[in-house]
Amino acid sequence: MSKTRLNVAMIGSGFIGKVHSNAFRQVGHFFDTPYDVRLHVICGRDRAKLEAAASRWGWSEIETDWQKVIARKDIDAVDIAVPNALHSVIAIAAAEAGKIVLCEKPLAASLEEAERMTRAVQRRPNMVWFNFRRVPAIVFAKQLITEGRIGQTFHYRALYLNQSGNDPAKANTWRYKKSDAGMGAAGDLLSHSIDIALYLNGPIKELSAMMHTFAPGRDVDDATLLMARFANGSIGTFEATRYGVGCQNRNTLEVNGSKGMLSFTLDEMNQLDFFDATEAGNLQGRRSIAVTGVDHPYGKNFWKPGHVLGYEHPFIATLADFLNSIARQEPFHVNFEDALAVQRILDGIERSSASRGWVSIEEGSD
Amino acid sequence: MSKTRLNVAMIGSGFIGKVHSNAFRQVGHFFDTPYDVRLHVICGRDRAKLEAAASRWGWSEIETDWQKVIARKDIDAVDIAVPNALHSVIAIAAAEAGKIVLCEKPLAASLEEAERMTRAVQRRPNMVWFNFRRVPAIVFAKQLITEGRIGQTFHYRALYLNQSGNDPAKANTWRYKKSDAGMGAAGDLLSHSIDIALYLNGPIKELSAMMHTFAPGRDVDDATLLMARFANGSIGTFEATRYGVGCQNRNTLEVNGSKGMLSFTLDEMNQLDFFDATEAGNLQGRRSIAVTGVDHPYGKNFWKPGHVLGYEHPFIATLADFLNSIARQEPFHVNFEDALAVQRILDGIERSSASRGWVSIEEGSD
Amino acid sequence: MSKTRLNVAMIGSGFIGKVHSNAFRQVGHFFDTPYDVRLHVICGRDRAKLEAAASRWGWSEIETDWQKVIARKDIDAVDIAVPNALHSVIAIAAAEAGKIVLCEKPLAASLEEAERMTRAVQRRPNMVWFNFRRVPAIVFAKQLITEGRIGQTFHYRALYLNQSGNDPAKANTWRYKKSDAGMGAAGDLLSHSIDIALYLNGPIKELSAMMHTFAPGRDVDDATLLMARFANGSIGTFEATRYGVGCQNRNTLEVNGSKGMLSFTLDEMNQLDFFDATEAGNLQGRRSIAVTGVDHPYGKNFWKPGHVLGYEHPFIATLADFLNSIARQEPFHVNFEDALAVQRILDGIERSSASRGWVSIEEGSD
Amino acid sequence: MSKTRLNVAMIGSGFIGKVHSNAFRQVGHFFDTPYDVRLHVICGRDRAKLEAAASRWGWSEIETDWQKVIARKDIDAVDIAVPNALHSVIAIAAAEAGKIVLCEKPLAASLEEAERMTRAVQRRPNMVWFNFRRVPAIVFAKQLITEGRIGQTFHYRALYLNQSGNDPAKANTWRYKKSDAGMGAAGDLLSHSIDIALYLNGPIKELSAMMHTFAPGRDVDDATLLMARFANGSIGTFEATRYGVGCQNRNTLEVNGSKGMLSFTLDEMNQLDFFDATEAGNLQGRRSIAVTGVDHPYGKNFWKPGHVLGYEHPFIATLADFLNSIARQEPFHVNFEDALAVQRILDGIERSSASRGWVSIEEGSD
Repeated sequence: MSKTRLNVAMIGSGFIGKVHSNAFRQVGHFFDTPYDVRLHVICGRDRAKLEAAASRWGWSEIETDWQKVIARKDIDAVDIAVPNALHSVIAIAAAEAGKIVLCEKPLAASLEEAERMTRAVQRRPNMVWFNFRRVPAIVFAKQLITEGRIGQTFHYRALYLNQSGNDPAKANTWRYKKSDAGMGAAGDLLSHSIDIALYLNGPIKELSAMMHTFAPGRDVDDATLLMARFANGSIGTFEATRYGVGCQNRNTLEVNGSKGMLSFTLDEMNQLDFFDATEAGNLQGRRSIAVTGVDHPYGKNFWKPGHVLGYEHPFIATLADFLNSIARQEPFHVNFEDALAVQRILDGIERSSASRGWVSIEEGSD
Repeated sequence: MSKTRLNVAMIGSGFIGKVHSNAFRQVGHFFDTPYDVRLHVICGRDRAKLEAAASRWGWSEIETDWQKVIARKDIDAVDIAVPNALHSVIAIAAAEAGKIVLCEKPLAASLEEAERMTRAVQRRPNMVWFNFRRVPAIVFAKQLITEGRIGQTFHYRALYLNQSGNDPAKANTWRYKKSDAGMGAAGDLLSHSIDIALYLNGPIKELSAMMHTFAPGRDVDDATLLMARFANGSIGTFEATRYGVGCQNRNTLEVNGSKGMLSFTLDEMNQLDFFDATEAGNLQGRRSIAVTGVDHPYGKNFWKPGHVLGYEHPFIATLADFLNSIARQEPFHVNFEDALAVQRILDGIERSSASRGWVSIEEGSD
Repeated sequence: MSKTRLNVAMIGSGFIGKVHSNAFRQVGHFFDTPYDVRLHVICGRDRAKLEAAASRWGWSEIETDWQKVIARKDIDAVDIAVPNALHSVIAIAAAEAGKIVLCEKPLAASLEEAERMTRAVQRRPNMVWFNFRRVPAIVFAKQLITEGRIGQTFHYRALYLNQSGNDPAKANTWRYKKSDAGMGAAGDLLSHSIDIALYLNGPIKELSAMMHTFAPGRDVDDATLLMARFANGSIGTFEATRYGVGCQNRNTLEVNGSKGMLSFTLDEMNQLDFFDATEAGNLQGRRSIAVTGVDHPYGKNFWKPGHVLGYEHPFIATLADFLNSIARQEPFHVNFEDALAVQRILDGIERSSASRGWVSIEEGSD
Repeated sequence: MSKTRLNVAMIGSGFIGKVHSNAFRQVGHFFDTPYDVRLHVICGRDRAKLEAAASRWGWSEIETDWQKVIARKDIDAVDIAVPNALHSVIAIAAAEAGKIVLCEKPLAASLEEAERMTRAVQRRPNMVWFNFRRVPAIVFAKQLITEGRIGQTFHYRALYLNQSGNDPAKANTWRYKKSDAGMGAAGDLLSHSIDIALYLNGPIKELSAMMHTFAPGRDVDDATLLMARFANGSIGTFEATRYGVGCQNRNTLEVNGSKGMLSFTLDEMNQLDFFDATEAGNLQGRRSIAVTGVDHPYGKNFWKPGHVLGYEHPFIATLADFLNSIARQEPFHVNFEDALAVQRILDGIERSSASRGWVSIEEGSD
């Protein structure tokens, strides 16, 4: 069966652009989709960098003006892999030009931008690269929760800790500037934890947050702490920081329910811990499930049971699911709407931190 | 060298009374103190229970009226092992009768009681059984922090999770009634985490807390969440719950500093995890130190390196240190003053939860 | 109900004597037995050491001649806590004098001694302090195996690693001399692993072993390796060493069966890992069971669920079970007969190592 | 700089062919090599399977006769990904036709074949896909050993456990037949452990082994156990089994040396555990190093520190190193010579198991 050619243009050529390039290259090797994905144009400001990336990953053309890229008729999809503050203008233009729109997380540098973007893409296929939603262990956690395996949720807790802020070599990039990034640890790290929480545990009704900056003169948060009430009656704590010395990329979540517990840490990405409180008392224990089996999410796509996946695989799965959702005209998540819900939480966090009190989170009206 | 006889009376005969009895029996086997500790009188309401406890542990006499016990001249020390709401009246009476006073944690059912108790015992040797301060790994953590091994503290986070509240068989004791316990998870579990935090990381300046009750009709908190600012500039999160299904007695703490990280969980009581960020980059890693060596706290008192301690050993060490502090007329910690500081935090938590905002914690003026 | 007084004499005052003293002191606090155990006489060669031990643990009398102790009419039980080479002469004399005989492991310095000892004690209550058989996790493992939870056994593997041999400060004691100890790591460490294996997995039919000495001039094994065939058709590997640098006291075992796996390490003494291969494929995982519940072995004797035990508790449980077996006139294990079976394996190991081939293990004919 | 086109033909289209295809596709994305690797011809017996693989991975042509493939002038390199018993005839033919030869492990189904193959390829670039030698943690372990970080080696122990043999669905493939595979667990699993051991700890001088088959009627080993003496004076134990129920793909190694310990398990592929016995006693502990840093092997090739690799990455690194070794005319390891050394051990294992005694391993004379 012949495939439909899909010409992609990627705006951005940094680290995350490398990750996206890999996903475009690999998706057809592990997933059946009706598209023949072509790495057509890579666009950025630095021509030498573009040439290197094009040569390495096989992008057919390079371009330094993103508006020209969007104006091209031969581009089907625009992938946005640039600093947060540039997301909205590109995404809106791409949507208006009728492109499929893919956008790196967090959706935007502000709630207002996120809302405009979401409105703009409404008639076009759109997605946001919240990659952890395709970590097999997290998809499997969702499945167990949906099956009622942990019963009614009581507690949700999540950490996202790295140590970049404490490292002078790292702390000078766009991620540390409000004008480029909008927020600090909250947008960069916490947004992931929030997205996963909304996926696994549903909407947050209200929250009380504290944003804190350790480094003198820095205008974004180095750390954000959060207490929350979810719509399902459970309560939650969140912590994201760039001053978690000792933790390179520690992304954890844990859920206690009336019938059991689920626990995940990105350091052991291929495992999900499950405590089944319905078993006989003397056999209860926290079990570590290797989520690489044929019956696990994406278990038939990559390698064999017991053969672990790495950082890039959830990106590949995200892209595959997105492509198939387009073909089947089915909804895809995380779309802009979903990412807007995350942005509403981030906005609530800023408001709560400023007012030093609890704030309500309104759900979207659509 | 002959020892001074020390006649102890213990008020209470429940689980914690068993733990204290064991400490009185064992202290002389593992520690040198100038006292010959005698289990003289055990006092409670249920004569049959008292007889059983006396026979098992070798208490010489039983008594059902605590006031009579305190009135006896042959009692040197009164140990309070009864529900929280009874602590203050007994402690104050014992202090007024000139006894050495030992009291189970938390100090009291309210801040006001705790303040009165603290004033009352000021001229008498006094202590509170915050046992975790004598867990070798926690003492060792304090030592490493004091030596500057983790540098300036950025983050402090602690959990104390059990699942008792979700268990109908357990949730009917005095611990679940405000009139007896004062508070729920906050007094029972969080007080431990707070005491350890004050020990390891110094005073808390302000906090924002949320107390939550899952069980209908229950008048104490099932779970308490907390964000805090410490006087040393670090920020903290705390969570205590009786709905942590999957966790029988999970008491953890973690500290990120500019030079490293420390991490402890009671499930692996004999270990302290340490990350040294001053080492060569490629050799940095979280190391698990078995705190059972001859150079570790209490390492020469119990068994041999690699031979683990259990739940009761920190109680024994607490008692030994207290007895020696009396003999040497040196200050002992945790004393009532220290436990009052914990109570001030607990009170702040109640105020913050009620007001849904941040509250300041005033330090004692003494 | 009044208890029968049981006068104990302990021969030996070293580290293991301290552990036994503690067991004699503590047994009545945690277990119901019909005996009132009295620490009557402690016997050794160094009077000052004896006085210190007697004062600390409450031994009523001291004695420097073990033969006098055994000749005393007021001694009911003799506990042997001296170097291996002295076990047989004392045990045989004690048995002939009609005493209850308790003996530290390994039973003897040679198979011939062990056989004589076993014959000598046959009409007297006798036991050997193979303490790990009363680790709750190991008793629970036995229970799960007996219930068929792991099906037919395929593999048994055990390690006992410490680093004492590599430490000049430690490597000069009697444990490193053939004349005192009989063997090195094999008698000291491997004997534990063998005893547990016989308990959990039944008799060994044949084995091929290798004993190795790293230190020049030392006449006992520093390390012993072993392959084995069990009578139940499973195969096993064992390794014991004093050159396991990085391991203070690592005692592990693992069993793979047709329906599951069990795994234990002494470093996490209160846990047993269990893999149930009969569960749905996507839920299979290695679970860590905290063996501190009310439904676990000895779960009602010590503290509460989630409150961990330490090194000494299995000794206390061993003594309790032994005392009750005497009262009930029921068989007790590990008795001398059981320890002789271990000694037969140790002897087979020496023979195999010398002949560099497989040797058969004959079971006792009694 | 323009690259040299390198036309690859792969013989085989099973699981490992998928892994190799991925390596050919990905090598240029993460590594600089002077070659433009082309997936030119895929060859196998089942045309439908070949067409599917070619379509998925982009092989330009398919072919069902491997001899025709080797006869083609436009093929530069032949990659052998077929059952073991076919390795030798293809490898020898490919070498004689002047091709670069890549071969899946183990090298051959017998020592005699392996020797002939090694002679045949001597003048041609050749390699064997012992992929674990490029796991960053294992390369880093080698580096630490070479630097003397663990001093003189005392013990080496390795396990390779899976549960495939106990699974009727899996146990019917060519891997379970002597005519196709030569050996069972020994060739399939143990060969990996042996290769890593030779890499990290040097040659094995003598060994005593036991091969065991659990399944009636099966003519290869289900499990192989092994004791060994290394040339450097250390001693080792190895165990490989397909009856390790509870273990999907557990590949572990541990080395104790005079100054420390190294420990690795494939389940946590991105970590290396290191115990440094030269540190202050109270700070010694087993540390877990995330081997994903910029200063770690291949740390700059894939993602960022803290971003984990999966099963396929070591294959990519193996290929990259091999290609660069060809360009630089430098030796590459694992080459056929190295794999022959593994085969000599496997042969020794068979001899030892048959004779039930120790056998010497002769090193190759070349």
